[in-house]
Amino acid sequence: MTTLHSPEETQRLGSLLFQGLGASEAEAELATAELVKSSLLGHDSHGVMRIPEYLGFIEDGSLKTGTTIETQQTSPTTAEVDCGYGFGAVGATAAIETGIQIAREQGTACVITRNCNHVGRLGSYVTTAAEAGMVAIATCNSPSYGHHVLPYGGREGRLATNPIAYGAPTTGNPIVADFSTSVAPEGKVRFYRNENKAVPDGWILDSDGQPTNDPNDFYGPPKGGILPMGGTVGHKGYALGLLVEILGAIFAGVGSTSTEVFGNGVCFIVLNTNSFTQAETFAQLMSDSADYMKSSAPAAGFDEVLVPGELEFRNLAQRKQTGIPIDPATWQQLVDYATKLNIPLDG
Amino acid sequence: MTTLHSPEETQRLGSLLFQGLGASEAEAELATAELVKSSLLGHDSHGVMRIPEYLGFIEDGSLKTGTTIETQQTSPTTAEVDCGYGFGAVGATAAIETGIQIAREQGTACVITRNCNHVGRLGSYVTTAAEAGMVAIATCNSPSYGHHVLPYGGREGRLATNPIAYGAPTTGNPIVADFSTSVAPEGKVRFYRNENKAVPDGWILDSDGQPTNDPNDFYGPPKGGILPMGGTVGHKGYALGLLVEILGAIFAGVGSTSTEVFGNGVCFIVLNTNSFTQAETFAQLMSDSADYMKSSAPAAGFDEVLVPGELEFRNLAQRKQTGIPIDPATWQQLVDYATKLNIPLDG
Repeated sequence: MTTLHSPEETQRLGSLLFQGLGASEAEAELATAELVKSSLLGHDSHGVMRIPEYLGFIEDGSLKTGTTIETQQTSPTTAEVDCGYGFGAVGATAAIETGIQIAREQGTACVITRNCNHVGRLGSYVTTAAEAGMVAIATCNSPSYGHHVLPYGGREGRLATNPIAYGAPTTGNPIVADFSTSVAPEGKVRFYRNENKAVPDGWILDSDGQPTNDPNDFYGPPKGGILPMGGTVGHKGYALGLLVEILGAIFAGVGSTSTEVFGNGVCFIVLNTNSFTQAETFAQLMSDSADYMKSSAPAAGFDEVLVPGELEFRNLAQRKQTGIPIDPATWQQLVDYATKLNIPLDG
Repeated sequence: MTTLHSPEETQRLGSLLFQGLGASEAEAELATAELVKSSLLGHDSHGVMRIPEYLGFIEDGSLKTGTTIETQQTSPTTAEVDCGYGFGAVGATAAIETGIQIAREQGTACVITRNCNHVGRLGSYVTTAAEAGMVAIATCNSPSYGHHVLPYGGREGRLATNPIAYGAPTTGNPIVADFSTSVAPEGKVRFYRNENKAVPDGWILDSDGQPTNDPNDFYGPPKGGILPMGGTVGHKGYALGLLVEILGAIFAGVGSTSTEVFGNGVCFIVLNTNSFTQAETFAQLMSDSADYMKSSAPAAGFDEVLVPGELEFRNLAQRKQTGIPIDPATWQQLVDYATKLNIPLDG
């Protein structure tokens, strides 16, 4: 049975587990905080269930502890952040902070990562930028082993689910959008397969390039693919996915068929609102614009119009009260690691 | 009957017509060249049919001739280009050139426009940037009178069709994507209405927020709306449309409900490929990536996988040979203006 846990307790436990496998306190705290925050916002797939996964990565050597982040500025406004295959969240946090600092002085910035493990919820970093008065656009690719997504008109995967996120300041909670450029992430197709259910129309093709609702047709063998977002205008989702590949791989000098890298290729574009209209004016007009979006009467089947990120901030308020749901498999893994590392479950 | 015309002759005629209504030779040549290029690439809706439309705008005073473009740099890497309601293409060309120049020195740039008329095909400007070794992202909003597009879950239009374009250099033709963030532009819905045909599923809602295939339900009264791109994941298209509004309006200090501005709010984000990997490496890896996309076997109903912009470059090669198709209504308008302004139809 899924159980509810306080975010503070989960933070303590996750951090101690990472430290138990050699992480510094600082990196353990930051990496855990990112995952706990994702769970609080309702993104369980990028949340606490990743703690045992990351612990496994430390054990198999693909996630290094105690790494130093090396930031190389490559022009007055661009930088490459070598994450040394440490915690992705630590590298991505360094990258967005570098971008914010450059944009504060120069107006704009573009920062990419190298050797970066799973960064978690991309929306987190653009939220940080929005809270610093920046509009930030973030993209994140994965190398060829993650190429589950079909190019428009094709039946062989050529791109990963390649999410795009952006954030913008308002007078209250920032606008935060974060979505894959495929119609669905691979994890959702897996969920349908595990539940023995048919996936919705327009999600996947089988290996012959025919539409199918059977999630097993995606996994094969022979393998099918997930469609780019857009349905009949899927060329748009394909174009967006390719843009994410350009910013995450080609900018880093990594070819799309490379098998030498793993993890996420992240790109942050940071734009200082103060370099155009004043930051205060921007925030006020952005809030007004959000109100205008929300003032639309709802369509059939909807209760209201939301702005990007609004649902997550509602989840945050609720889950701060009720706690974070942790599924039984994840909890058992946490218990097993705690036992093995001699860490008490209660602080 | 639609007739075919040589691009050179069309260029001469369009330029002389604009000059006949007071445009300088330079602005007339540039504005006409943009429209002729769009027709050559197959984008007739942004092509020569706009010449008489622009001539009408000059006559009604909404398009000024002989304007000077005023560029104000607002930080080391950002600029605002006041287009003075001259030809949109002239203003947007100044804006992208400013962006390219800044990015060449600083690595990145972000340039927005003010008081900008219809800029035509957004893909044109990112092509210019790609040819200068830049990856450029372009967005273009329209004010409230163009808010035909529904926010996800809503039944009242809150955004325009808000296109996004991007370009990236290869060793050959650049990658050029250019698409609206709605499922279809308003002009396509109008086409179906004029032809007395049903629009495809998933394009529009009626004023009650119910799905409909009758284009008249969109126009009303009472007015319906066009759906954001994405179908069942239309929240993604909505988020992209809102990003275009942020970059085009809020950055310029213009509220989303403002009725004081008209035309396009353009934003160019320019990233110098040379600030990351070397430009030559970028171009080669980009070409390799395009080949990899195209190497996917086709899905059912498709002959091949294309990369963004490829179809347009094929049209260009063909139409350079065959000429540009001009519909009879547009041709008659051109003839009428030529007669009125005493300009010979043949040079």
